[in-house]
Amino acid sequence: MLKQIIARIREPDQGSAFSAKSRQDLLTKPAGSLGRLEELSVQLAGIYRSPLPSIRDKVIITMAGDHGVAAEGVSAFPQEVTPQMMLNFLNGGAAINVLARHVGARVVVVDMGVAHDFEPHPALIVRKIAYGTANMAQGPAMTREQAVRSILAGAEVIESEISRGLDIVGTGDMGIGNTTPSAAIAAALTGEAPAKIAGRGTGVGEEGLRRKVQVIERALFVNRPDPEDGLDVLAKVGGFEIGGLVGVILGAAANGKPVMVDGFISTAAAMIAVTLTPAVRPYLISAHRSRESGHGLMLDWLGLKPLLDFDLRLGEGTGSAMGFTIAEASCKVLIEMATFAEAGVTGKG
Amino acid sequence: MLKQIIARIREPDQGSAFSAKSRQDLLTKPAGSLGRLEELSVQLAGIYRSPLPSIRDKVIITMAGDHGVAAEGVSAFPQEVTPQMMLNFLNGGAAINVLARHVGARVVVVDMGVAHDFEPHPALIVRKIAYGTANMAQGPAMTREQAVRSILAGAEVIESEISRGLDIVGTGDMGIGNTTPSAAIAAALTGEAPAKIAGRGTGVGEEGLRRKVQVIERALFVNRPDPEDGLDVLAKVGGFEIGGLVGVILGAAANGKPVMVDGFISTAAAMIAVTLTPAVRPYLISAHRSRESGHGLMLDWLGLKPLLDFDLRLGEGTGSAMGFTIAEASCKVLIEMATFAEAGVTGKG
Repeated sequence: MLKQIIARIREPDQGSAFSAKSRQDLLTKPAGSLGRLEELSVQLAGIYRSPLPSIRDKVIITMAGDHGVAAEGVSAFPQEVTPQMMLNFLNGGAAINVLARHVGARVVVVDMGVAHDFEPHPALIVRKIAYGTANMAQGPAMTREQAVRSILAGAEVIESEISRGLDIVGTGDMGIGNTTPSAAIAAALTGEAPAKIAGRGTGVGEEGLRRKVQVIERALFVNRPDPEDGLDVLAKVGGFEIGGLVGVILGAAANGKPVMVDGFISTAAAMIAVTLTPAVRPYLISAHRSRESGHGLMLDWLGLKPLLDFDLRLGEGTGSAMGFTIAEASCKVLIEMATFAEAGVTGKG
Repeated sequence: MLKQIIARIREPDQGSAFSAKSRQDLLTKPAGSLGRLEELSVQLAGIYRSPLPSIRDKVIITMAGDHGVAAEGVSAFPQEVTPQMMLNFLNGGAAINVLARHVGARVVVVDMGVAHDFEPHPALIVRKIAYGTANMAQGPAMTREQAVRSILAGAEVIESEISRGLDIVGTGDMGIGNTTPSAAIAAALTGEAPAKIAGRGTGVGEEGLRRKVQVIERALFVNRPDPEDGLDVLAKVGGFEIGGLVGVILGAAANGKPVMVDGFISTAAAMIAVTLTPAVRPYLISAHRSRESGHGLMLDWLGLKPLLDFDLRLGEGTGSAMGFTIAEASCKVLIEMATFAEAGVTGKG
């Protein structure tokens, strides 16, 4: 199943990208003068296999899970906040709701493994793998089979959203403690020391940060994740929402849709996805560089240049939402601007 | 007249800013986790003198002028492109039209001193000071009286737009050759060498850039602008659209409206405005750091941190338009998000 999804990921269309680039050079502006907006439009042309890409349906998929490692005191907030924030998402009161409304995106909330039973809610998708992961400081966070299941669940969610209409997906996360597994994933895959990657998350103090680094070191020592094997890394030091996001990313690429990657947790998921198949990389857009210490290093490892640098450290997909409006703008410039010939403007001397 | 405008600029309201900051800390997110969006909402609360600021009417004012110094071969494009691009703005085919539509802003096009007579057009405001400036490499670009008139004309334009409805103004510019006076202004005010500030503008080559630097050096040597006197700098090495933008900036601040400062040319105008009165500074938001070499240095001189870093070098107000959507998002977060108490979410442990 997972192999089938991966096999469907095609290389973006170079011809469409080339046509878009050529058109950018005909538009009434000095060639290249819209910088990142031009680059982004060319990337999107390749992904959509169209010289005139356009974005209409924008979807943020916010996946939630709990983490056994929270018991080690790695977060500034108690675990009960995960389901409480899920209800906040469903009621439209969270930052992601506000920003998604602002940019005209819909938010899809998925329970991938929250340690709580929710009342049925029309807007809640339940794909619970388990009631939170096991404590990775003592053994694997999940079984390899659970890792595969979380990815496939994520891929199913994106397939279903594509059938409802989706031109671009933004990743989002919720899960008290989840900067700890994300930092562990990044340390495992890059080989960097946890102290260089782990940050203050939702706001732990100096001592909390020291404890967090030690917990990650212990998790890596106890589990020995294999950096060549994305599934092994996900199973041993990952999380269910992270696995779900890996599935969203792979499923989007398999269907020729671009992925706006949010912050620290989403980037860890993107790293797992790229480890499973480098073919997914051209489909990724980094929305922002977060305040979390190691995020820049992770983006470098992925070869991604973030759109924004706003010191965000909230997750939920908040950076992705802001990224959407930039991606949309880049396509509109390409489609709607007049050419030198159309506008009767003299070209460069 | 100019003194009266300056005298009307008040300090932003610290109480409203403080209330906004306090509310940010009650919203369902770790305090500070929305980074720049939070900072921006607090700045806007102070400017609007309201703890719950909101942005509805967004206006880009794109001012155009021609430059005698273009005769020195400092631009990659011929001077006739200035009026041609004005018509492109009026017809809705330029980048600024596309991006303004995207963010729901209106574009106001002003002829401050283009070397061309336009047919009357309902959307064109004509405030022509002269048919282009004189060649600053040989003497002052304009008289001191013209400098004052250009500022007052800009202030009248913004007053008139405020009466039509304006919550935030974005500056924009058009004028073949205008990175040269802008770099000269920056060199005069910062004391830095022109070679450290001048860039390739619309795309001059290595030799063109050398010539441009020499022209700026000559203009500064011939005119000796007084860095303590903003009017003197504007008159000797400025431009009519730059003077107009100084007026827009001062007029906006005098009316308690924030200014989204676009790129290199707009930033030069902001530097003149701050030289005339430092009271204007808290009203400024830098939309982006452009690709033009000295722009970062100019923003540092102003003490502004740009929102975006997209390698833009087009002007017209394109960066301001993108900045608008970020400013709007920052206010919506502050107003629309649920508090911990409202959402029943447990606070930090």
